[in-house]
Amino acid sequence: MSQPFLRGVRVIESSAFIAAPLAGMTLAQYGADVVRIDMIGGGIDYGRLPRMPEGRSLYWTGLNKGKRSVAVDIRRPEGRELVQALVSAPGEQGGVLLTNIGVPWLSHDALARQRADVITCTIEGHADGSTAVDYTVNCATGLPAMTGNGSEQAPVNSVLPAWDIACAYQAAFAISAAVQGRAVTGTGAQMRLALSDVAFATMSHLGYLAEAELLHVDRPALGNFLYGAFGKDFGARDGRRLYVAAISLGQWKALVAACGLQEAVRRIEAATGLNLDDEGDRYAAREAIAAEIVPWCAARSLETIGQRFTEQKVCWGTYRTVRQAVAQDPRLGSANPVFQTVHTAGVGRHLAAGGAVRLMGVPHPPVVPAPMLGQHTDEVLADVLGLGDAAIGRLLALGIVAGPAQDPLMAG
Amino acid sequence: MSQPFLRGVRVIESSAFIAAPLAGMTLAQYGADVVRIDMIGGGIDYGRLPRMPEGRSLYWTGLNKGKRSVAVDIRRPEGRELVQALVSAPGEQGGVLLTNIGVPWLSHDALARQRADVITCTIEGHADGSTAVDYTVNCATGLPAMTGNGSEQAPVNSVLPAWDIACAYQAAFAISAAVQGRAVTGTGAQMRLALSDVAFATMSHLGYLAEAELLHVDRPALGNFLYGAFGKDFGARDGRRLYVAAISLGQWKALVAACGLQEAVRRIEAATGLNLDDEGDRYAAREAIAAEIVPWCAARSLETIGQRFTEQKVCWGTYRTVRQAVAQDPRLGSANPVFQTVHTAGVGRHLAAGGAVRLMGVPHPPVVPAPMLGQHTDEVLADVLGLGDAAIGRLLALGIVAGPAQDPLMAG
Repeated sequence: MSQPFLRGVRVIESSAFIAAPLAGMTLAQYGADVVRIDMIGGGIDYGRLPRMPEGRSLYWTGLNKGKRSVAVDIRRPEGRELVQALVSAPGEQGGVLLTNIGVPWLSHDALARQRADVITCTIEGHADGSTAVDYTVNCATGLPAMTGNGSEQAPVNSVLPAWDIACAYQAAFAISAAVQGRAVTGTGAQMRLALSDVAFATMSHLGYLAEAELLHVDRPALGNFLYGAFGKDFGARDGRRLYVAAISLGQWKALVAACGLQEAVRRIEAATGLNLDDEGDRYAAREAIAAEIVPWCAARSLETIGQRFTEQKVCWGTYRTVRQAVAQDPRLGSANPVFQTVHTAGVGRHLAAGGAVRLMGVPHPPVVPAPMLGQHTDEVLADVLGLGDAAIGRLLALGIVAGPAQDPLMAG
Repeated sequence: MSQPFLRGVRVIESSAFIAAPLAGMTLAQYGADVVRIDMIGGGIDYGRLPRMPEGRSLYWTGLNKGKRSVAVDIRRPEGRELVQALVSAPGEQGGVLLTNIGVPWLSHDALARQRADVITCTIEGHADGSTAVDYTVNCATGLPAMTGNGSEQAPVNSVLPAWDIACAYQAAFAISAAVQGRAVTGTGAQMRLALSDVAFATMSHLGYLAEAELLHVDRPALGNFLYGAFGKDFGARDGRRLYVAAISLGQWKALVAACGLQEAVRRIEAATGLNLDDEGDRYAAREAIAAEIVPWCAARSLETIGQRFTEQKVCWGTYRTVRQAVAQDPRLGSANPVFQTVHTAGVGRHLAAGGAVRLMGVPHPPVVPAPMLGQHTDEVLADVLGLGDAAIGRLLALGIVAGPAQDPLMAG
């Protein structure tokens, strides 16, 4: 990549689970040197499901691609001092810590005593320091009560940890912005980012909070209808399902043309007084519109519908499983520069994504697989701290650091 | 804010809906001068639901806080030239376009002819330029097939546009990184970011794609169980519901202690041969574990459970509606610096979130409400393009630009 935007930026990451690791990986995908620190033998997320039969975690290897791995015994003072030294090592571009592990010896103040312009970004559950994960935040947003069709006996959770993901990309943004700010002002930054603040701030941005506060309504569970315009799932003749959205006027006109709904639209408008060119009116008439499309889709195969919709530029998508997606979609393959086939130690060859942002005119950077635990211990101690072979050998012999031979999955 | 990281960065945004506007707002929340360009009278998202009775959109005002608004007749050549001039205006920090509207006159090449180091970030549905929205991408990820308890007749969609949100925060990150890269190298960047690439790349990062490719399994719909560890919703005696997660060993030990499950754990372990200190084994034993917690919660009020869980540091949260969240949660109020009360024209006073990242030691920047349409037309033409009163008066008189008096909701 001729322009790795963050080349030269070094981030020390002490993390687990999703938000912090995904933030670090995002920085690495755009050129930062991200060094993940783990306990010798692996942190609490090293074995998370799904796992290969031999034990390597597809979760961990997915979230730590392109990083360097250093294994340290952080229970011992000398191990902790090494990690502090890695964060506070001199040089224009070092001095950045990304963490979701709130330990005093990696606090901003402790590090700022060693390097005054240090940048720290700490991800936490709630801003008061209490614990939370995506699922215990999401239940409190009100979204599960709006999911499903209202007939369920309990709220319906989303399976995607959307707040972890949002938090990760915001943290990557904040670190990038803080590094840029430090280049201008010379000043570091102590940043804290709570998962619940990401969730509730985003709910504010999308209008949910103001709607509840000012209009005193809670949105109902709408099944798979889309709030505020027209969108719905439909079944094809062959049992496959698809989703159709008509948010913009252009999308609506395309749908009407593709399904031949002109007469139905006139009928619905005459009966209701609504103007279906208005998205809010389409939302009001959603049941009547859907009733016209159900038989149209049910009479045709998914292939026929898809050809017609694609020709007419309808906004639509197919329901499928992840296996179907991987097997069938050329967007998930080497035709797409975002995806490459890599070989991950202990996993084998598989499709993996790099950064989703494509920089036109330059090749997409290679997707670098996740390291073995401690794969870069020697290298990082040498190039960041300037330690020689003897000093590194001593740390290894004392068990203060470890190389990849002590990865418990090394045999994999 | 003594350190607005992106102060002096000016971004011209020509956008609609969620991903691009939320990206622009995120940049504005950290100090960038974000100028949103809209058609006179408003773009296609200006009236999106939910709306105030007088017409102002809580969706639009939520997603455009803190921006400057310029209203331009972009159907006329002189209007288009003005927008091009705003993007390519000289100065170290200008020259950035954020858009999800793929029009030739705002293409990277057209702009680069005017300013060689221009940075453009174009958000699109699919990378091939075909249309997609969050819902037509999400159905194809496989997630709806994993949502709900498997008894539904159709896949269950998420109501949160999580991919739009992820795309927004990634775009903000990419623009910040590109601006930093340009400061070092002097080179601009043409960036493209497809919503479907964000979704599938993130599915790769979380291990879903490798799991399908290598292990040949699709995850089942688990109801509200959490994949890979223990997590589940439970009902309290008073009809309220809560979610409990035990991902880490610490969270599990806290849950066992809080509910007095020590004996039940020994029983389950003896019967199954599992070790419930292992998160994967907790996942395997999830039904048996849940069966112990159901009666414990059903015998207690939510308040009693919450006190016990909070004392014991259990990771948990309450299900509630958005109205309950706004009414009851001190995290959504002035006790939290992320939230402030603002007055938005046409809306009134309401709670609104700024950026979720808190910078310790400095006051959180004020939350600036969304502008009226064209509120900053005069000001931006003067300070970015250096136009004088006469030139601006001429553009207004010709209807090439408009001020806030021509906002259709100005009376609101």
